[in-house]
Amino acid sequence: MLRNLPPILSPSLLYALRAMGHGDEIAIVDANFPAESSGPDCVRLDGISATDTLKAILSVMPLDTFVAAPARTMQVVGDPDAVPEIVAEFQTIIDDTADKPARISTLERHAFYEAASHAFAVVQTGETRLYGNIILTKGIIEP
Amino acid sequence: MLRNLPPILSPSLLYALRAMGHGDEIAIVDANFPAESSGPDCVRLDGISATDTLKAILSVMPLDTFVAAPARTMQVVGDPDAVPEIVAEFQTIIDDTADKPARISTLERHAFYEAASHAFAVVQTGETRLYGNIILTKGIIEP
Amino acid sequence: MLRNLPPILSPSLLYALRAMGHGDEIAIVDANFPAESSGPDCVRLDGISATDTLKAILSVMPLDTFVAAPARTMQVVGDPDAVPEIVAEFQTIIDDTADKPARISTLERHAFYEAASHAFAVVQTGETRLYGNIILTKGIIEP
Amino acid sequence: MLRNLPPILSPSLLYALRAMGHGDEIAIVDANFPAESSGPDCVRLDGISATDTLKAILSVMPLDTFVAAPARTMQVVGDPDAVPEIVAEFQTIIDDTADKPARISTLERHAFYEAASHAFAVVQTGETRLYGNIILTKGIIEP
Amino acid sequence: MLRNLPPILSPSLLYALRAMGHGDEIAIVDANFPAESSGPDCVRLDGISATDTLKAILSVMPLDTFVAAPARTMQVVGDPDAVPEIVAEFQTIIDDTADKPARISTLERHAFYEAASHAFAVVQTGETRLYGNIILTKGIIEP
Amino acid sequence: MLRNLPPILSPSLLYALRAMGHGDEIAIVDANFPAESSGPDCVRLDGISATDTLKAILSVMPLDTFVAAPARTMQVVGDPDAVPEIVAEFQTIIDDTADKPARISTLERHAFYEAASHAFAVVQTGETRLYGNIILTKGIIEP
Amino acid sequence: MLRNLPPILSPSLLYALRAMGHGDEIAIVDANFPAESSGPDCVRLDGISATDTLKAILSVMPLDTFVAAPARTMQVVGDPDAVPEIVAEFQTIIDDTADKPARISTLERHAFYEAASHAFAVVQTGETRLYGNIILTKGIIEP
Amino acid sequence: MLRNLPPILSPSLLYALRAMGHGDEIAIVDANFPAESSGPDCVRLDGISATDTLKAILSVMPLDTFVAAPARTMQVVGDPDAVPEIVAEFQTIIDDTADKPARISTLERHAFYEAASHAFAVVQTGETRLYGNIILTKGIIEP
Amino acid sequence: MLRNLPPILSPSLLYALRAMGHGDEIAIVDANFPAESSGPDCVRLDGISATDTLKAILSVMPLDTFVAAPARTMQVVGDPDAVPEIVAEFQTIIDDTADKPARISTLERHAFYEAASHAFAVVQTGETRLYGNIILTKGIIEP
Amino acid sequence: MLRNLPPILSPSLLYALRAMGHGDEIAIVDANFPAESSGPDCVRLDGISATDTLKAILSVMPLDTFVAAPARTMQVVGDPDAVPEIVAEFQTIIDDTADKPARISTLERHAFYEAASHAFAVVQTGETRLYGNIILTKGIIEP
Repeated sequence: MLRNLPPILSPSLLYALRAMGHGDEIAIVDANFPAESSGPDCVRLDGISATDTLKAILSVMPLDTFVAAPARTMQVVGDPDAVPEIVAEFQTIIDDTADKPARISTLERHAFYEAASHAFAVVQTGETRLYGNIILTKGIIEP
Repeated sequence: MLRNLPPILSPSLLYALRAMGHGDEIAIVDANFPAESSGPDCVRLDGISATDTLKAILSVMPLDTFVAAPARTMQVVGDPDAVPEIVAEFQTIIDDTADKPARISTLERHAFYEAASHAFAVVQTGETRLYGNIILTKGIIEP
Repeated sequence: MLRNLPPILSPSLLYALRAMGHGDEIAIVDANFPAESSGPDCVRLDGISATDTLKAILSVMPLDTFVAAPARTMQVVGDPDAVPEIVAEFQTIIDDTADKPARISTLERHAFYEAASHAFAVVQTGETRLYGNIILTKGIIEP
Repeated sequence: MLRNLPPILSPSLLYALRAMGHGDEIAIVDANFPAESSGPDCVRLDGISATDTLKAILSVMPLDTFVAAPARTMQVVGDPDAVPEIVAEFQTIIDDTADKPARISTLERHAFYEAASHAFAVVQTGETRLYGNIILTKGIIEP
Repeated sequence: MLRNLPPILSPSLLYALRAMGHGDEIAIVDANFPAESSGPDCVRLDGISATDTLKAILSVMPLDTFVAAPARTMQVVGDPDAVPEIVAEFQTIIDDTADKPARISTLERHAFYEAASHAFAVVQTGETRLYGNIILTKGIIEP
Repeated sequence: MLRNLPPILSPSLLYALRAMGHGDEIAIVDANFPAESSGPDCVRLDGISATDTLKAILSVMPLDTFVAAPARTMQVVGDPDAVPEIVAEFQTIIDDTADKPARISTLERHAFYEAASHAFAVVQTGETRLYGNIILTKGIIEP
Repeated sequence: MLRNLPPILSPSLLYALRAMGHGDEIAIVDANFPAESSGPDCVRLDGISATDTLKAILSVMPLDTFVAAPARTMQVVGDPDAVPEIVAEFQTIIDDTADKPARISTLERHAFYEAASHAFAVVQTGETRLYGNIILTKGIIEP
Repeated sequence: MLRNLPPILSPSLLYALRAMGHGDEIAIVDANFPAESSGPDCVRLDGISATDTLKAILSVMPLDTFVAAPARTMQVVGDPDAVPEIVAEFQTIIDDTADKPARISTLERHAFYEAASHAFAVVQTGETRLYGNIILTKGIIEP
Repeated sequence: MLRNLPPILSPSLLYALRAMGHGDEIAIVDANFPAESSGPDCVRLDGISATDTLKAILSVMPLDTFVAAPARTMQVVGDPDAVPEIVAEFQTIIDDTADKPARISTLERHAFYEAASHAFAVVQTGETRLYGNIILTKGIIEP
Repeated sequence: MLRNLPPILSPSLLYALRAMGHGDEIAIVDANFPAESSGPDCVRLDGISATDTLKAILSVMPLDTFVAAPARTMQVVGDPDAVPEIVAEFQTIIDDTADKPARISTLERHAFYEAASHAFAVVQTGETRLYGNIILTKGIIEP
């Protein structure tokens, strides 16, 4: 553990967050998401919720302001405008924790898979709530 | 996730538990333990308590009955007979979960480090309570 | 071996099943199938029948309910509607063991090869009966 | 599969048997044996009995005639002269299958572990009977 | 060496032959063939003739009966109907050794290179006779 | 870069600091130190001073209170009681930055090399001042 | 460190510069640039400015005279003709240090990313000024 | 060193030449050529001239007679018919050393780069003369 | 194949012979020798006799004159002064082929195994005659 | 190639020299020296003399002044006080090139082998003169 850093930021997760640059993306996914086969390096956080993971990551990672949608979730299949409770929680965490809060955008399910396959890393959490997935774009640290 | 298996048994942890044989040992250690430098393969469970980890492991792994001390914890430095609250919890979990419950034995701190260095694997949990460490010896499945 | 888990679920096979997510597929193939050259990681179960393998896998892996055909076998060449005895046995095992039983669908031989090449893993069994091949899609564990 | 070769001789097992030379040893061990941590390369035959494995190996591998004890089993703890039923079966298989039959010798349990740690390979079978372990020494093919 | 197996079947070659499945191909090529750059794993048999290699391989590997041309050689450049002496020898060996003898088919030189690049393995022999190349397709072992 | 973290904590350095446990040591060494051959993983910070490196590391890593000497420098050869200016700066940084300030101890030159060879990692800085070397012992994060 | 060589030319950076040939490119990028995911090998110089890095590299690497634009920077988004202060500094360094000074050309932002993805190596500096990125083409050493 | 073999044929270079087959190509390139990024394995002969390298290689490698241009050099940019002195030397060495002398053909500069990218290996010499590059095609050893 | 080099000198064998220096040893062993477990890199020449291998190696490798016994064979167990026919052939080949012929010395069987374990490489031939083993010490090429 | 650096300093050699620290040693050895089996990483400079190599290395690497013998050669066997011509040349180069010239010391032949086995790297040159071996100790760059 380190001083002033959330303990769930493991060695590999800290490495990935620090190595990412402006525009790189990280996907936080739930326990059912096919993370290991999605392509990017997979960082595991078995047993940890996606909301705790989001909070920990946003405590150190700046959110991008150059793109229109720096935080994206997966649309409910058949009900693209629905806002699952966990997505509402995601929004609250972003509002409370991010350096540059942003409104969550949504992606159709297969577009979300496609986007995750281009992420810098995918964090497989132990989140059991469905639709507990979110992709974040890293911003810059101002000089 | 799999049916009827505790979700914190990650792919790597399940692999280790299944690959272990009679007499092989696994160390469950707290968040301050020097697990990565202890020698054996290190399986990370950041953010998960040592007690939940013990419970999950004992739900699938048989405890050894051939050795006198199949469950060993670290003695409190300067007070070898003390029983920290977490060790008492470990005992309750063993009594409730193990196929062959056994009394926990203790090892002097450096003897514990030495024993951990010979384990099949070391599981680094997010346990923040001090002395949240235990070494288990795998038993056999009767024919 | 582990408690309450079929012993033919080897370390590698347990790892793969646990690492797979919703929508990932696993192919169980017979002893003549070109498994090692099919592309995915190959888990070997030499000498074990495809039916025992199916039973063991379905005892831990949920079957998908999102797709129309979560269990697919290879059509007999020249007689696509034939149901080889082993396929009938597959159906019985699914009916008896799966959390969400489903009717087996079939794929033309080359379509089956193509599907297997996209699986998360291919399990090469020792099945000697011809057409002893089946592809399963992993479902979710409900919250 | 190959013509005239027992199908449980997997690619890795055939490789090891062919690569071994005069005096190299192979250990066939039961499902509870700590094979993966014993040191040598571990070839898995989950679900296969130790007796079938012995039969298959002796059908291709010559037994050594230079050493006094080319086939060694583990003594029953506390009863070194006992001959468990599976050891009796081992002897029958050697008598029936080996090119140069030999009487099985025994090793005290820890001496057996030590000997296994120097083998060319350890074959982890699915044998559930206790004491289902045997170490064979490879002989020569006469010119 | 192993009992009843031709000694030129080296550990790597036995591994490849055993790992191949129905429809996988193996190319036996002469000493001038660009084997190491052809793509597949290259098994070397320096100093051994292609004919001895063919004989050894067919003694364990079944020839395919599903495809029209399970044995293919390279056409003589400029004389596609010529039958070099070594190809005649190949045919005799197939007739004498294969479980399911078949007539050798031929491929134009570049088509042969292309076919070899998709083989499971390429065996570089020490054959010095020109056109000493043949591609075999593995068949099945009947139940 | 990450929010609230000194930018010279590179991905590899953050990984090492986070992976270290109680009692693990990290050596910060000057540009002339034989770091790459010292044994532990070498993290490079070419061009960065040892003092800036110390400040950055202590901003996240707790200093040990269990051992008598959690911060050790190399004695000046021939003048073991001398306190080079850079060592005085090290002490000031520890006093200002560490969670648990401690007095720096010293080690004879070869004892320092020996201690560095057992560290978790060695950080090769661009420090050009001689004796710009210090070994730190990681402490615990209290529950 | 080596005689007469700038100390920030680390082992890996010297290796890359020496291994590069005529026409190979190296990208010097700022601390926010997504260097680790850009494709080429990434050499880190955390905490070092892009200008010091440029000066050090040009002290040993010849600039190409065969191509029209051997030094290229990223255009300011929305103001392609702007010359950020750091780019002006880059030009001064080239004029003072390069063996064959050249005028800096510019690339639109995404064209710059694309060009960087084909570089021999990307040097991630600690440069905090925005637009602190430059791609250099290596020239020849005349006979 | 070996008897009767030019000492500049290093272990790696001998390996490559021996492993190459009929039609495989090897590129000998000068000290400015971007060899390490050209794609094929790069064998270094720093400080050795391209002419000495050509002589050594042709002393063991047969030149192809099946293709029209078994030896190809790079055309002078802007003067495709020019014959640089080093190319004239290449021709003399081929005439004196090759088993089957052949006239050197030329390739436009980018076609040469393209051809080199498909070679079996690229030998980076220390040749300082410009245009000191040649691609050779390996022939056969007659039975 | 290469000009003027025995074709059984494979890429790996040529590499080893060229990489060896003064005093390095190479063991040529028969088909029953436990070569793969002997420690050094193992070069396979399945199907080739030890005598042909010796002849090929001595055609390029100088024999040492600094040591008393640059060629050593294994003593017949129980008859240390016996000279098996194959050893007599080895002597004839050395007399005919080596640059500096030497009398063969002998080593007791276990001393031979020990010596082989320190060789630069072990060449496993297909020699079927017993005692077809010899260790050679490489000499120097005079300036 | 790089500006102002001797071209025989290859990428690997530059890397080693730059990575070495105070007290690390580098061995320059002749073409007959058993460099590849000596233990340290082996950098090859086939065809280059040991004297040219020494000159190039000393042009960038400082010689140590802390140890009594920063440059050591091998004593002539049987004549330990002899100074071979090449050793005299080594001394002249050190006097002319080193930043801190030093008198060459000598080591008995086996002591030299032992010392070389602890070097940071061994540079195998093409030096054909006997006794063309020297071990250098790296010094520091003063602040």
